[in-house]
Amino acid sequence: MFWEEYPSFADELNNFENYFNEKLSSSNDLITQEMNRLVAAGGKRVRPALLIAVSHLGDFNKERIWPMAAAIEMIHLATLIHDDVIDKSSKRRGVETTHQKFSNKTAIFMGDFLFARSMEIILDEFGNEKIDEALLRQMKNTIKSIKLLCEGEVSQYQRQNKKIPTFKEYLEAIKRKTALLFKASTMLGADLSGMNKYKVYKMGKLGYYMGMSFQLVDDIFDFQEQNNKLGKPQNNDFTQGIYTLPIIYIYGESENQKQLDRYLEKPEKYSEEIKRIVHQKGGIEYTKQLAFRYKDKAQKIIDSYKDNKYGEIIYWLTEKIIDRNF
Amino acid sequence: MFWEEYPSFADELNNFENYFNEKLSSSNDLITQEMNRLVAAGGKRVRPALLIAVSHLGDFNKERIWPMAAAIEMIHLATLIHDDVIDKSSKRRGVETTHQKFSNKTAIFMGDFLFARSMEIILDEFGNEKIDEALLRQMKNTIKSIKLLCEGEVSQYQRQNKKIPTFKEYLEAIKRKTALLFKASTMLGADLSGMNKYKVYKMGKLGYYMGMSFQLVDDIFDFQEQNNKLGKPQNNDFTQGIYTLPIIYIYGESENQKQLDRYLEKPEKYSEEIKRIVHQKGGIEYTKQLAFRYKDKAQKIIDSYKDNKYGEIIYWLTEKIIDRNF
Repeated sequence: MFWEEYPSFADELNNFENYFNEKLSSSNDLITQEMNRLVAAGGKRVRPALLIAVSHLGDFNKERIWPMAAAIEMIHLATLIHDDVIDKSSKRRGVETTHQKFSNKTAIFMGDFLFARSMEIILDEFGNEKIDEALLRQMKNTIKSIKLLCEGEVSQYQRQNKKIPTFKEYLEAIKRKTALLFKASTMLGADLSGMNKYKVYKMGKLGYYMGMSFQLVDDIFDFQEQNNKLGKPQNNDFTQGIYTLPIIYIYGESENQKQLDRYLEKPEKYSEEIKRIVHQKGGIEYTKQLAFRYKDKAQKIIDSYKDNKYGEIIYWLTEKIIDRNF
Repeated sequence: MFWEEYPSFADELNNFENYFNEKLSSSNDLITQEMNRLVAAGGKRVRPALLIAVSHLGDFNKERIWPMAAAIEMIHLATLIHDDVIDKSSKRRGVETTHQKFSNKTAIFMGDFLFARSMEIILDEFGNEKIDEALLRQMKNTIKSIKLLCEGEVSQYQRQNKKIPTFKEYLEAIKRKTALLFKASTMLGADLSGMNKYKVYKMGKLGYYMGMSFQLVDDIFDFQEQNNKLGKPQNNDFTQGIYTLPIIYIYGESENQKQLDRYLEKPEKYSEEIKRIVHQKGGIEYTKQLAFRYKDKAQKIIDSYKDNKYGEIIYWLTEKIIDRNF
């Protein structure tokens, strides 16, 4: 079990999981069943776990925090469901994807349903009298993250199969794809548990760094021989014309360019060669180092909270993100 | 021009159109260009026009109303873009659809972008002090409508190619598909222009009835010989296993069932026969009558506002919805 080292947090997350499942129910039976199926397939709930753990560093209030954690995970699930339609992925986390089991229609509208449901859950927390400033601020921030994520995906499409992105473009892409929702999670946890502005800002940084290292590790997985642990069939970014840091880095060395250009013209045919050269020329090593650097930055922030049980959990999670098989 | 009989309202909507276009701009150039292209292709902006007109019956405040009208149209556009991916439609309003011009990825994330942007626009109207109760109430209502719309689409998928829906199921389907967003528009206009609870309720009914008649007329178009005026290639609901009232009605007469069953097994082959029998046996006539009944109900509500210029415009719109080619 993922959280076995922290049994009381594991219990808390188990209870949250039940709550999350309840919140996903719909008046449409297919949506309810399908949501339950996807939830049952697992997923480590890293974003809600992080949000909940951070909020424990402040003035924890389950009634305020759990709905936000559920909303964040719904947004994440929605993007996964839409992603799988686009990538035509047949499996995720070892089970059939929604569009594969049913149809594109079900998958697209189920994703849209999840977006709407997440907004509904957040709005339900607004009182009827005084505005909850922290909530409004963080709701705006979360929506902005979704917007940037969508824009980032469209930018990725524009670059697809074209030139290798620059290092800067790559960092911007993974920030939008992953780090901003991590950041929104930690900021929600911090602001809604009453931390001061500076701490909210710091916790935002923490989430951002963790998200960056998370995505860097994900991009390394793409070059593994078999990434069956993720439950996805081998379906590499680079065969779809999406170039991540391991390739970007080695492409920066002029001696590799010609060979890579040739391979990348027929990426499916040469997928093994591409993986090999990326490993040999240090693309994986370089990406790993950068992931470690983000981890270190995250740890620098959480370090002063290590006496706190939840600070310790977050610290552990920064390590786990680097050394993971999920 | 659509609003030529009401030149000052036409001016107002022209100005709104510019505002709407501005609000659609994105940091991603492709999204901005594509939005401008879709907006330039037309669309009568029935929902925002209705929202704006209704709000003129109360205490009109452009600063409060225009953002809501823009948000509602964005939500509508988002559902159209996602719909076109699902239906694999190549054209709408005479121009190429987004997924056709670019990719499914662009279209799905552009739709998601629009959802997020609409939420952002609404949230920007929340003050930082006292809660705007009307805004919160109507934002919740609008999101609920989106949720019900998504659930409705999934239900439609479940029924697709299966049995002919009942009359009641059909009414529920068009309510979710169209009438609820019309209703959300009129309620937003009413509540944000300070109408009392009863009037907000009545305006909600007005929008609901107009939406129902709008969708009934749309479903009649599906049985026209050529519906080129809509700029869509002929792509009938019934050939995709979606059965609307014209078919549901005639299927209710046992004498037609056997023949229809045979035709509907190969709907593309028999599409002309299906259209013919639907016309001959009164399916179109019956649907038209129902559309008129909803129009009458809408007019009964707006009737007492006919002295007001905007009341007159809305009344005219109830007629136009029935007798339209858009």
